[in-house]
Amino acid sequence: MRFFSDNAAAACPEVIAAIASANRVDTAYDGDALSRSLSGRFSDLFETEVEALWVATGTAANSLALAALCPPHGSIVCHRDAHIQNDECGAPEFFTHGAKLVLADGAGAKVTPAGVEAALATIRNDVHQVQPHALSITNATEYGLVYTPEETAALGALCRARGLGLHVDGARFANAAARIGCAPADLSWKAGVDALSFGFVKNGGMSAEMLIIFRPGLAAATLYRRKRAGQLMSKGRYLAAQVLAMLDGDLWLRNARAANEAAARLAEAAGAERLVLPVEANEVFIRVTPAEARALRDQGFDFYDWGPGEARLVTSWDSDAGAVDALAAAIRAL
Amino acid sequence: MRFFSDNAAAACPEVIAAIASANRVDTAYDGDALSRSLSGRFSDLFETEVEALWVATGTAANSLALAALCPPHGSIVCHRDAHIQNDECGAPEFFTHGAKLVLADGAGAKVTPAGVEAALATIRNDVHQVQPHALSITNATEYGLVYTPEETAALGALCRARGLGLHVDGARFANAAARIGCAPADLSWKAGVDALSFGFVKNGGMSAEMLIIFRPGLAAATLYRRKRAGQLMSKGRYLAAQVLAMLDGDLWLRNARAANEAAARLAEAAGAERLVLPVEANEVFIRVTPAEARALRDQGFDFYDWGPGEARLVTSWDSDAGAVDALAAAIRAL
Amino acid sequence: MRFFSDNAAAACPEVIAAIASANRVDTAYDGDALSRSLSGRFSDLFETEVEALWVATGTAANSLALAALCPPHGSIVCHRDAHIQNDECGAPEFFTHGAKLVLADGAGAKVTPAGVEAALATIRNDVHQVQPHALSITNATEYGLVYTPEETAALGALCRARGLGLHVDGARFANAAARIGCAPADLSWKAGVDALSFGFVKNGGMSAEMLIIFRPGLAAATLYRRKRAGQLMSKGRYLAAQVLAMLDGDLWLRNARAANEAAARLAEAAGAERLVLPVEANEVFIRVTPAEARALRDQGFDFYDWGPGEARLVTSWDSDAGAVDALAAAIRAL
Amino acid sequence: MRFFSDNAAAACPEVIAAIASANRVDTAYDGDALSRSLSGRFSDLFETEVEALWVATGTAANSLALAALCPPHGSIVCHRDAHIQNDECGAPEFFTHGAKLVLADGAGAKVTPAGVEAALATIRNDVHQVQPHALSITNATEYGLVYTPEETAALGALCRARGLGLHVDGARFANAAARIGCAPADLSWKAGVDALSFGFVKNGGMSAEMLIIFRPGLAAATLYRRKRAGQLMSKGRYLAAQVLAMLDGDLWLRNARAANEAAARLAEAAGAERLVLPVEANEVFIRVTPAEARALRDQGFDFYDWGPGEARLVTSWDSDAGAVDALAAAIRAL
Repeated sequence: MRFFSDNAAAACPEVIAAIASANRVDTAYDGDALSRSLSGRFSDLFETEVEALWVATGTAANSLALAALCPPHGSIVCHRDAHIQNDECGAPEFFTHGAKLVLADGAGAKVTPAGVEAALATIRNDVHQVQPHALSITNATEYGLVYTPEETAALGALCRARGLGLHVDGARFANAAARIGCAPADLSWKAGVDALSFGFVKNGGMSAEMLIIFRPGLAAATLYRRKRAGQLMSKGRYLAAQVLAMLDGDLWLRNARAANEAAARLAEAAGAERLVLPVEANEVFIRVTPAEARALRDQGFDFYDWGPGEARLVTSWDSDAGAVDALAAAIRAL
Repeated sequence: MRFFSDNAAAACPEVIAAIASANRVDTAYDGDALSRSLSGRFSDLFETEVEALWVATGTAANSLALAALCPPHGSIVCHRDAHIQNDECGAPEFFTHGAKLVLADGAGAKVTPAGVEAALATIRNDVHQVQPHALSITNATEYGLVYTPEETAALGALCRARGLGLHVDGARFANAAARIGCAPADLSWKAGVDALSFGFVKNGGMSAEMLIIFRPGLAAATLYRRKRAGQLMSKGRYLAAQVLAMLDGDLWLRNARAANEAAARLAEAAGAERLVLPVEANEVFIRVTPAEARALRDQGFDFYDWGPGEARLVTSWDSDAGAVDALAAAIRAL
Repeated sequence: MRFFSDNAAAACPEVIAAIASANRVDTAYDGDALSRSLSGRFSDLFETEVEALWVATGTAANSLALAALCPPHGSIVCHRDAHIQNDECGAPEFFTHGAKLVLADGAGAKVTPAGVEAALATIRNDVHQVQPHALSITNATEYGLVYTPEETAALGALCRARGLGLHVDGARFANAAARIGCAPADLSWKAGVDALSFGFVKNGGMSAEMLIIFRPGLAAATLYRRKRAGQLMSKGRYLAAQVLAMLDGDLWLRNARAANEAAARLAEAAGAERLVLPVEANEVFIRVTPAEARALRDQGFDFYDWGPGEARLVTSWDSDAGAVDALAAAIRAL
Repeated sequence: MRFFSDNAAAACPEVIAAIASANRVDTAYDGDALSRSLSGRFSDLFETEVEALWVATGTAANSLALAALCPPHGSIVCHRDAHIQNDECGAPEFFTHGAKLVLADGAGAKVTPAGVEAALATIRNDVHQVQPHALSITNATEYGLVYTPEETAALGALCRARGLGLHVDGARFANAAARIGCAPADLSWKAGVDALSFGFVKNGGMSAEMLIIFRPGLAAATLYRRKRAGQLMSKGRYLAAQVLAMLDGDLWLRNARAANEAAARLAEAAGAERLVLPVEANEVFIRVTPAEARALRDQGFDFYDWGPGEARLVTSWDSDAGAVDALAAAIRAL
């Protein structure tokens, strides 16, 4: 009964089936029919013309986006707890050739316009300091909070006013969209987003993540950077197939809803007192004593400790209903 | 009837089956049991202790190896026609942070000790010039030639004498090993090779390539560089499963033999006069007039023109026997 | 009556004279007799064998040192207010190819072992996080505090225990050494320092800064990196001449003492209540109301505001005694 | 009697005097009056609005220009014998973050439109290959040849047609301009040049080189890159002073003419048979047997051997008339 990480989940059967049915001779790299259909399919989904590029990891999607938005001598504002700052081993610095990350504060890894302005206010506008070129936010955040379209648009407006590009790390974008129930456009380009890392792997995919580029002209150099980073797979059709399978019939949304609902059940069981943060996506942070954590583990539940006195429970598209109910009951019984 | 590229081939059924059977919850990244077994399995295969890392592409394997062997202020000797020079969009320069490639000559993209020495002789040993730190060869070469163990060892000895690391781009290492019929050790560490990009995708794999590191101590930093390059996939078990399936029962060798044999049939049909180079692996370069090339295409055979008056025919693990026979007959009939 | 910056000071007459007397034909780059004598002269000064390289700026000295101590995938701990973090436009990131700076706290831009340990404690030892490779401190600090030999040695011991290199940004190393009155060795290699940026320009030099490398073997690659960074001047003898002139008769120490003494006079005038920090080198931070700052400026004193209610006064080797006395009197009169 | 290198020459007295007269308190970095006057003075000289930035070395000027014209994933065409390829230890690769140099041929290190087209023709226009973004030529070339305005303009037209930026490494631009006797504009922006490294050090300067940027908008990022590369000297007024002294009364042209005339005298003495290349600037390449070379050295003349059977003689602004006459006589007497 694993509540460690949505990375640990299996791939959903439609994805495995799509791989098998893509298993034929075809043009290499991204020249195959499946890969070539992606920009069109995502343009439909986002109701505007986009460039859609598969890559092997969310780290690659994030870093390629940041390299498109920020020169080597620039900086990117992000939350102090952002994945790009803490969990990608310096990939943004590698892909951007040495840009800096400027850290903003905010509850639950969520930045606010005021937080971004405070971070920007530390930067003198002279040649001795690295100047800001982009803002990167994570939706849903690393702590399971969701930016609404209005919140995203407020950050988008700030970026436009300050000449910054706006990137969304959407490793759990599906969970955010499922939570809000809005059109994907509302959480992206309509709110001023230039580039989105659209995650599929945590949500039932196997090995394909998408970089969606909204700002016209931004994709051209990225195609070269993707190749140069060893991210242009020679049999790209197997990546495209996975993603297309998850677009079909809005499987990506259904998977995310399932994960969110499992998390909501755990949140309800935990109750307001025990919850560290509101549960808006598929991550649940609860207060537990060491004895309580041990008690849960003794019943077979696996999860990460998250600092002293806290635990992180992550649900996924395939969280077993019985296991979720059992964990909910176990939490209630603490 | 495609003879374009082994990248265009399908994945072999064992690989697809292995993916399906790996489809369960497991530890993320390379912490799963399959991934953790790789170094042991490859140590067995190579008869020495190695570190074996999966990555998404051959470009990534090559570039990580080169970054391990050459500092940003160094250079790497390679053949003028090497894939790392011509077909990776500057990935070696990206991963090494700006090392230079120094180009050596030799027939069929194969470098000789004399060719390497000639390239090295152009470099003054002073601080104004970029100093050489590594040699990279491709086995089988981009033109389908194979380095023997003795030839590799001669280059290895030169590298030791000159203080250079030795990397092998083995996108078609299986084809080389199948051709020679020797132990993989003879074409690698026993011949002085420090790191090998061991290709699986062109040989029936789907999305996993291997970087095999022989020199003790060389792997440590590479683990960070792999993560930093967005090459540490979160569901790594699906990559490991593919590679393990191809190690089982020496499937990788059987696949390579099949491709080599198909190429040999085409070579025999072409005859010495028409062949540009000896056929030692799964690539056949033939002399054809534009009219002859058109005649072949009119019969349904697809392939690349390769400079004026030449064509490249590539066979693969799944080359259809009937199509090969038909092409052989068509070539004879020219 | 300028108290803006020691960068604004003139060069001392001995430096100008040395340039004029070096003005003859000689070997280019660092092959001239003056440049070749530097390592010997600094080895004498530091009482151990060192490599001494001139460069054009302190930024270059710092960044070359950091690149020698930290790989692209590593990080460098430094104070939140360090010059390398705030005033070099990302030069450390450029020269290291994308290493991260990890920020430590401490009063007056001075880090303590506890502060460094707290910064290190935020870094998990796994491949997803950038691992620390070096500590960089500034002596005297950006706020005019001085590390004693004992304080430096405590940090040096911590670095050895944690496998970190230790760099000192000594843009005002002369002021620190003058303050302590100790041997330069006590503030450097004897305290565990691997590399020192030894500043001359703020202290009466014109255009030459020194990078002093203590750790054997660390200099070799730096010679290439210096050239590669456009820091190997073709007429290097004019840089060497400046530095040698300042070593002669301990001019560097006399200059620093003069600056320190001028600052001490201002500090005494300001008094404990008005001083933001103790004055240990040549920078004086005082509390002033806007009206007081205006009053000083109305009397002809130039200086920087330093955040709300504070001002920074910097003295230099050539601070005019009359101007210092006048400013001291004006401060007393506030 | 040194004919090794113009880098070995002294600085001219006007430069030394200018340094001494700039020796006063002033604003740091490039905020002083002298530095601020540079763009205006060079705009006058070039008869168009330019941005003029001092840097410490020609390597820095070249590399900053190339970084402005070429992204990390691009390439720069240059001659096989270009200084940027052979004598800057990979500085272009460092400053551009890993761009490639594509090598063109041509007699005397001089590229022709046909040579550039031949180099470009090797590059497929697809994502697997690094695409060209700039051409860099050296005027006068590394072998002492001079591009005329017409020749430069032909290359400029090619660059415009192919979407390439055009950089001139003008380490000896003064010698080229002196040779042609044209306006500097004719050898630069009027011929399509985007950026010029305008050398002063080989021509009697001490430590200041200039980067002249013609293309509007190209300078903005370069100011940050200069700082980031440790090339924004804190006492910049001493660099500006040198350059301004050499602009006054066209000293830069007079110095270059003196060097050219000395070389012409040597060329005349050598005669057509002995000359390897026409002598158009201040470098003379002659055919000499080992015995002849020894004979010259025995008479006290110092110079570089330049490959088998050839020697390089370099004159400079201060070449002693007696020494030149003596060498001319010695060559005649061989």
